[in-house]
Amino acid sequence: MLSKNKIKFINSLQLKKNRDKEGVFVIEGDKIVREFLAFGFPLKYLAAKGDFIDRLKASDLKNVNEKEVITDEELKKISFLKTPNNALAVAVMPDNLLDVNSISREYLLALDFIQDPGNLGTIIRAAAWFGLRTVVCSPDSVDVYNPKVIQSCMGALLHVKVIYHDLKDLLEKANSLKVPVYGTLMDGRSIYSQVPGGKGVILLGNESKGISPELQPLITEKITIPKFSRAKEGIDSLNVGMAASIVLSEFMRGTVSISD
Amino acid sequence: MLSKNKIKFINSLQLKKNRDKEGVFVIEGDKIVREFLAFGFPLKYLAAKGDFIDRLKASDLKNVNEKEVITDEELKKISFLKTPNNALAVAVMPDNLLDVNSISREYLLALDFIQDPGNLGTIIRAAAWFGLRTVVCSPDSVDVYNPKVIQSCMGALLHVKVIYHDLKDLLEKANSLKVPVYGTLMDGRSIYSQVPGGKGVILLGNESKGISPELQPLITEKITIPKFSRAKEGIDSLNVGMAASIVLSEFMRGTVSISD
Repeated sequence: MLSKNKIKFINSLQLKKNRDKEGVFVIEGDKIVREFLAFGFPLKYLAAKGDFIDRLKASDLKNVNEKEVITDEELKKISFLKTPNNALAVAVMPDNLLDVNSISREYLLALDFIQDPGNLGTIIRAAAWFGLRTVVCSPDSVDVYNPKVIQSCMGALLHVKVIYHDLKDLLEKANSLKVPVYGTLMDGRSIYSQVPGGKGVILLGNESKGISPELQPLITEKITIPKFSRAKEGIDSLNVGMAASIVLSEFMRGTVSISD
Repeated sequence: MLSKNKIKFINSLQLKKNRDKEGVFVIEGDKIVREFLAFGFPLKYLAAKGDFIDRLKASDLKNVNEKEVITDEELKKISFLKTPNNALAVAVMPDNLLDVNSISREYLLALDFIQDPGNLGTIIRAAAWFGLRTVVCSPDSVDVYNPKVIQSCMGALLHVKVIYHDLKDLLEKANSLKVPVYGTLMDGRSIYSQVPGGKGVILLGNESKGISPELQPLITEKITIPKFSRAKEGIDSLNVGMAASIVLSEFMRGTVSISD
């Protein structure tokens, strides 16, 4: 039976300060919990309906510290969702370290002050799809362990390291390593006329403010997604999730061998 | 002063059946209302703060049937938003007719059973950005005049005709006109190896079910967005908004002169 302390503990994880203090975050729902289990991601605690637990393989549970069968009623008490779905787990935050030298070999996506949880989730999914391994967010960006981000990026988080790090420092290192820093700006060159070299930092800016003025001088390749419409009003920007998808598609096409 | 009848009328427009009966929909917020006004889109009624109205040009009001200055308190009573923003208008639904022959000259985007309002809004923005003029939704798709769709697609709706029409009928016409029907399927050809011809129907499927079995035989070009990651778990799909952005970017690059 779910203890009062457990209920209190899990509910406390809605707040970033408590997640950071405990070094854990909540994942929820049949599909994502199953993916984390199959991957062997360390889970401090798994609470799920009997059916869900019964269908697991022994190997799924190798990195689960504690598991508990709970009822629908109990799940409602700990769920952050309107319609709770079979399973919830408390996962251990990975200790993701920034390997700056990776930008000499592959693309790294850098996000300047992304505020919307859904956008961050979408961008992480796009990064995972296109085989990127690292997303660096400015420290003022939305927390990746925010439940809304988790629901939006799902299992993509298993494959992309999301790191919070000062972007000025990152871009200065890129400059000193002489690898490209691609930044989306209004006056950039069309992404379709670039011949991307398969490495460097791809920098995307805030939903409404774009890339911070202090970061702009560190950009070595200004890029832009050309607008095909000739309309003057009403089509002033793409959202940052769409922009990430389009830029990553364009940068990856042709540069990497495609797995099947 | 805002009458009780007006408040009741505007609130009734949260429901599709009332919007359809009256042939109107609500747009909200400083930016979108300003864009609709500048465009000259027919508005049955404009309610806005004094400041907002004062800053309008006479030409902005040429297609406004009735306008009213309202207070913050009054705006709260008619707004569908948590934080109402200066202006709200009741816009007249355009009488968008499907011009099937356009698919012999340009791309048309067809959406099979899109359910999420945010996704539909994103897709309309992508369509507008890439210069498409028509999006055809299956009749069971979410309503484009749903307030959440409007908030998500903003002024893009000024430039894209969104039409609800039986997709089987549309695709059969495309087949008989011998123009391509591109459909995203798991076993399709890589979008990066296509040489798109600048015309035809681009068909995207439902968020979780994909393209309906009854429509699949009408697809003439199966396409797929290749996954660059080799991961087995957790990266099983892109969301349909991202997929639309990527496919449209890939189809439009190189086929059309860029207006920038």
